[in-house]
Formats: sequence, C-alpha cells, structure tokens
Amino acid sequence: MTLTVLDRRDAFRKALDAERASGRRIGLVPTMGSLHAGHTSLMQRAASECDVVVATVFVNPLQFGPTEDLSTYPRDPDGDRAKAEAAGVAYLFAPPQGEMFPDEPATVVSVASLTDVLEGAIRPGHFQGVATIVTKLLSLAGACRAYFGEKDYQQLAVVRRLTADLSLPAEIVGCPTVRASDGLALSSRNAYLTPGERAVAPTLYRALQRAAAAATGTSDADELRAIMSATVAAQPALQLQYAEVADAADLSPLTTLDRDARLLIAARLGRTRLIDNLAVPR
Amino acid sequence: MTLTVLDRRDAFRKALDAERASGRRIGLVPTMGSLHAGHTSLMQRAASECDVVVATVFVNPLQFGPTEDLSTYPRDPDGDRAKAEAAGVAYLFAPPQGEMFPDEPATVVSVASLTDVLEGAIRPGHFQGVATIVTKLLSLAGACRAYFGEKDYQQLAVVRRLTADLSLPAEIVGCPTVRASDGLALSSRNAYLTPGERAVAPTLYRALQRAAAAATGTSDADELRAIMSATVAAQPALQLQYAEVADAADLSPLTTLDRDARLLIAARLGRTRLIDNLAVPR
Repeated sequence: MTLTVLDRRDAFRKALDAERASGRRIGLVPTMGSLHAGHTSLMQRAASECDVVVATVFVNPLQFGPTEDLSTYPRDPDGDRAKAEAAGVAYLFAPPQGEMFPDEPATVVSVASLTDVLEGAIRPGHFQGVATIVTKLLSLAGACRAYFGEKDYQQLAVVRRLTADLSLPAEIVGCPTVRASDGLALSSRNAYLTPGERAVAPTLYRALQRAAAAATGTSDADELRAIMSATVAAQPALQLQYAEVADAADLSPLTTLDRDARLLIAARLGRTRLIDNLAVPR
Repeated sequence: MTLTVLDRRDAFRKALDAERASGRRIGLVPTMGSLHAGHTSLMQRAASECDVVVATVFVNPLQFGPTEDLSTYPRDPDGDRAKAEAAGVAYLFAPPQGEMFPDEPATVVSVASLTDVLEGAIRPGHFQGVATIVTKLLSLAGACRAYFGEKDYQQLAVVRRLTADLSLPAEIVGCPTVRASDGLALSSRNAYLTPGERAVAPTLYRALQRAAAAATGTSDADELRAIMSATVAAQPALQLQYAEVADAADLSPLTTLDRDARLLIAARLGRTRLIDNLAVPR
C-alpha cells in the first residue's frame, strides 16, 4: 500500500471514516516525528493487529515548557515519510500548527494525581499538554486501536486514564521499549547526545536492571531506590532527577513490593534529559 | 418509531454506530432530565434536521457544587420517557451513575477565560463539570448534530469552544429559549418556586427586555446594566447576582455596544437561582 500524506483534519477524519465504513480496523500510532525503531515497532505491531495503519506526526507545542526544546526538537519529515511507508503505514497525518490550532486553544484536559508526580513534577503542564493533544487526536481518529510505547510510561498511564474517563472510542495498547544493543532506550532526544555522553547514557538502563535483579531478594522499595541512585551517582556526568519505585497502575510511590511495580528513572546528561523505566512484576 | 431506552455506554455507542452505518444522521439532545417544553423543542428541532433523534438523561454530579442541589434536583424518569417518545426520540440514553463513572474520574476538561466569569464566578467548578461530561457524551455519541438551548448561554459558549478545540465530531446547534406565556424562561428548577415566587420570576425577562429596548437609543453598556439592576431591585424578593452586557461570542464585558452583545442576568429568588439572557444584535 502506498503512503498517503494528509495535512488537513477534515481529510484525516474522512479517510478513516471511509476505511471503517469498509469494515477495516484502524491502528493508530501518534508520534512527534523524527521516527526511530521505537516508533516503527509500534507501526509494525499495529500492522500485525489491524487492517489499516495510521500514523500522526505533530510536534505538540502544548507539552513543552517555556524553557524546553520545542524550537530545537528534531524534525525529519522526509525520513518520517520513508520510515512510515516501510513500516506499513497507509496514512500519515502531519498537520501544520495552524491546522491543529487555528485559534489559541482555550480547552485543557488534565488528569489528576497521575500527572503531578515524576515527569509531571519536573515538567509542570507537560501532561496537560499531552492529555489535550491526545484527546484531540483520538477524537479526530475515531474508533481505533492506538499504540503507545512504554518508554514514556507515565504518558501511557495518563492516556489510558483519560481514554477511560472520557469514553474515547480508542483501545490503548502499550508496547515494549525498543533499546539499542547496549540497552539505551531509543528516543528522538538521543540525537542531542555527544559521543562521550552517548557512551554514558546506558547507565540508566543498568541502574534499572540492577534494581530489578535485587527485587528478587528484597521487598523493600528503598533498597531498590538506593541501588538506582548509587549506579547513577557513579557517573559524574549524570545528574539524577528521580529514581522511583511506583505502583505500576497508578504510579503512587511504594514502600513495599507488594504489587506489580514499575521502576522509573530520569537524569540530565549535559543538555539532554533521559528517562527510562522497567517492570518489576510481583 | 418506538423509543428504545439504553443504560449501557457500549449499547449506546453501538446503536448510534449502526444508525450511521445505515447512512442516517444523528441528532443528539443531552439533558439532565425532568424534561419540559424547552427540552422537547430541542428534540423537535433535531427531528426536523436529522434522521434519528437521540436524547441523554444524566444528572451530572461533576457540575454541582458541594452546597448545591444535586440530591434534590428534580427527577422524572417516567415523564422523561413519555415526553421524549412524543417528541420523536428514537434512543434515550439514561445511564446510572456507576455506568458513567465506574471509577472516580481523574480527568477534567476545562475551558479557560469563558468559565471564570458570570455563572463560573458564582459556581466554581461548574463549567469544568459541564465540559467534562459533554466531552464524554459527545465522545460516546460520535458524529452528530448536538442541540443545546440558549437558556444556558454560557454553557453553549463553553460547549462550542471545547468542541472546536478538541475536534470532537459534533456540530453544535444553539436553539432559542422557550418561555412561559409571561416570559419566564423554562427551567427544571422552576419546579422549586412557590406560587408567590413564580409570580415574581418573570421580572428577569422584563429586565432583559427593557435593557434590549434601551439599546436602540444608547451604546453605553453601563446604562443597560443600570436598567436591568433597577428592574430587579424593584422586586425585594429577588437578590441580583449579576446583570451583565457581554461580547456575544467570548462573554467578555463590554463598555460600548460596538459588536453583537448578550445581556445576561442571574438572581436568587428564595432558595432558587434563576438565570436568563437575551441577544442585543449590533
């Protein structure tokens, strides 16, 4: 199937309505572009489970803080098109700013509690911006399965919650993080790393792995936090922002590993923020 | 067409999807029940413009403040069914609380600026509750024309705005306020009025009419505010809450009648709050 690029909301909605009217199931992969193997794994998963794969590329200004990297966020429209087509995408919705927000948007979607901790505490307003654009994209797309990476684990939790609370017509599918051979989680922001920083970056994943391994011998969440912190502290280039052990569903901090837990970690490395996470099943 | 009553979200979505799949256009009338001629006028309008009329009855707890009348809000399920059927409604969606909110909802939809003034200033959180439930109902209903009364003018403005901002698949249709023969705007809350209060209640509409008439001779918004205030003040049983002259689109207060304006008024009458509004075209 050849890729059709759409840049108007009306055309996007109509194309998907027509596919559904023909009985085809839609798989949706919302992205901010600069596609890498993490994104294309979502598209391939969607292709294996749905009849028509649709990707969106929109660098959403609502989820960037005033001092963040909106203007420098990596953009690669030609590469995105080629990678999406190779991954089996039928429609690529890549609207310009003025098409998504013809007026300054007054409406904000927020998700209580889930959005105040971890990334939300460090990036105020970030998840409101995510929740608002995801609500808009899912509303435009209509009934579909929508694929999100576990790399942004808190985002996935927020999206699951708002989809349920607002009865959006999507089924949310979380997909495993794709990693480089040395364990670094793929991220568009990895493009910011110098070669020296790139060599240090996998430390985050090692910290998660060590803590997950230790979880077989302890149920004390603080022990796992200490292991993650110590692993990161051994690399002076990394400035730890958080190393948390949280309830896998609602992200509340855990004292004891008495349920499915998630390890979540964030650090600064030069001018780049890195985040990663790992499951600790009960 | 016989009325089908639905109380499950899934059944509601499926029924409307099936109607659309058969090429029929949906007209949606969201209500809090206790239907009166204002509601049925919306249903009749929907019937004249659409193929299938769908009404919802849900007393939305999110839009009531802690000291407001949620528990005593008038409820009349049998009457609602009969009136909806007589007005041409094909599907009546009347979910119980636990069906709409199986979990305490964490997601809130808010609309900046529009929601802080007038009713929003007096009823903190009210429009967030309205915006959240309307987003959910429009999301469940899917593509439709959705009919709202001008009686709740600020609500109509909020609904128009969030529908545009979030690209919900509905077209919002505002419909004229239905009035009793003495001018009182129909409202489910009129059931609270004692006979003595009921006789005083049309004063609000008279205040609006006098101000609108005066607008042919002045462009000073404060003159209109003074006319409304004086008319209400002549009835000691009424406690004025606001008498505003606002931009008809964004509800910002006007100094000069240099664009389409809306007169908006609210007062307490015993234990009942009354609101009303009237157009002042430029």
